[in-house]
Amino acid sequence: MISHKIVPNISVDCVIFGFDFEKLNVLLVERELKDEKSGEILIKDHTLAGYHIFEDEDLDSAAARILKGLTGLDNIFLEQFGAFGQLDRVSSPKDKMWLDYIKKGFADRIITVGYLALIDNTKVTLTLKDRNVAWFPVATVKDMEMAFDHKYLFYTALEALQRKVKVEPIAFQLLPDYFTISQLQKVYEAVLGTSFDKRNFRKKVAQMHYVIPLRKKQQGVPHKPAQYYLFSREVYEKTRKARISFII
Amino acid sequence: MISHKIVPNISVDCVIFGFDFEKLNVLLVERELKDEKSGEILIKDHTLAGYHIFEDEDLDSAAARILKGLTGLDNIFLEQFGAFGQLDRVSSPKDKMWLDYIKKGFADRIITVGYLALIDNTKVTLTLKDRNVAWFPVATVKDMEMAFDHKYLFYTALEALQRKVKVEPIAFQLLPDYFTISQLQKVYEAVLGTSFDKRNFRKKVAQMHYVIPLRKKQQGVPHKPAQYYLFSREVYEKTRKARISFII
Repeated sequence: MISHKIVPNISVDCVIFGFDFEKLNVLLVERELKDEKSGEILIKDHTLAGYHIFEDEDLDSAAARILKGLTGLDNIFLEQFGAFGQLDRVSSPKDKMWLDYIKKGFADRIITVGYLALIDNTKVTLTLKDRNVAWFPVATVKDMEMAFDHKYLFYTALEALQRKVKVEPIAFQLLPDYFTISQLQKVYEAVLGTSFDKRNFRKKVAQMHYVIPLRKKQQGVPHKPAQYYLFSREVYEKTRKARISFII
Repeated sequence: MISHKIVPNISVDCVIFGFDFEKLNVLLVERELKDEKSGEILIKDHTLAGYHIFEDEDLDSAAARILKGLTGLDNIFLEQFGAFGQLDRVSSPKDKMWLDYIKKGFADRIITVGYLALIDNTKVTLTLKDRNVAWFPVATVKDMEMAFDHKYLFYTALEALQRKVKVEPIAFQLLPDYFTISQLQKVYEAVLGTSFDKRNFRKKVAQMHYVIPLRKKQQGVPHKPAQYYLFSREVYEKTRKARISFII
């Protein structure tokens, strides 16, 4: 096994959002430190999936490697949402205690590059390694204890995702090939943390020429069967340049 | 004077876009290296306004300090557009020669954080320091020689600015309080590097309820006087949340 040298003052942190067809979740890693003698719990909180980069890899590769190592997740499309370098971002007493304990040769000051992804979390299996990794509803994060500046990173990533879902067709990645308007509305509501009037939402979708109604309807459902739609990337791309697409 | 220690492997680079009411420009710094004996020019190209961060400052402060030091520009709203860490980003023969020459104790591998800004460049006076700093039309950059990966950073910043102008009201920052639709169109065309059909553009603006027509018209112009408009941030903010503002 080749041993890679870490860069002591540069890390990456991944904010992985998961949609489960009901709500938006985020992937967090448990951090626990017990007193060796008394067994008393000194630290118990959560971190994002992150670590230092290696000297011989670029930022994107580091993010992919670290995510895979901590969670087993592979081939996730990761996108940067910012670099963070506040002087005190890893220097709270709790975080100092943690860094002293793990003794990995990190610098006192660490700049981190944040990456985010949005995936269908019902389709993934987490590989639990030496630390607990789990999905948490985004709405519960505000009351959680988090390490370093990771709560701030999380909210920054959430805002970036919310901007993104409004101007890029990422919602469709989470849906099956044929979907109903209700399913589409659910994605937008979960990501944006809001609820839309059903009729207004339908009107908006009617203006998206790349969301194409099919003759197909739901079958075997207890309620009035809903119509299916599909997302046409071809129409989306074709009409994108022609549109003067300011948000109005 | 207090001497600050630089962080050898972390820098920031600023892509400052300037609008001069005709076209979009970018601020670049000349880099020149002559052979000490023969006077032969070994390197002559351009860089973004960038440098290493200090150990005792955060990223945003570093970007503001460096920009001011190189150009005299102060109080510019700078926003990150990405972190860049390709292994070979500062290791071309030309760039190695430069780094050997300036001998500042930089690392072999440097991660940089990119910042961008958009300003009215007719309103700024550049403080020329030891190196030449000037505005260049964005359209000319493709044929220029640039240092490191700065051309790539420039185009990444340009794309980020183009996405931004479509979904945020930044165009209005560049205009006087009262402006004509033609002036507004000019901003969008300059930033997006395209031209819009006049009638379609007017239709689009008519849908922006925060662009408010005034009774006031141009005076003393040789052509038919155009109507003035104003941008209402209040209306913009008020209607923003109510809109389901996907790009359609």
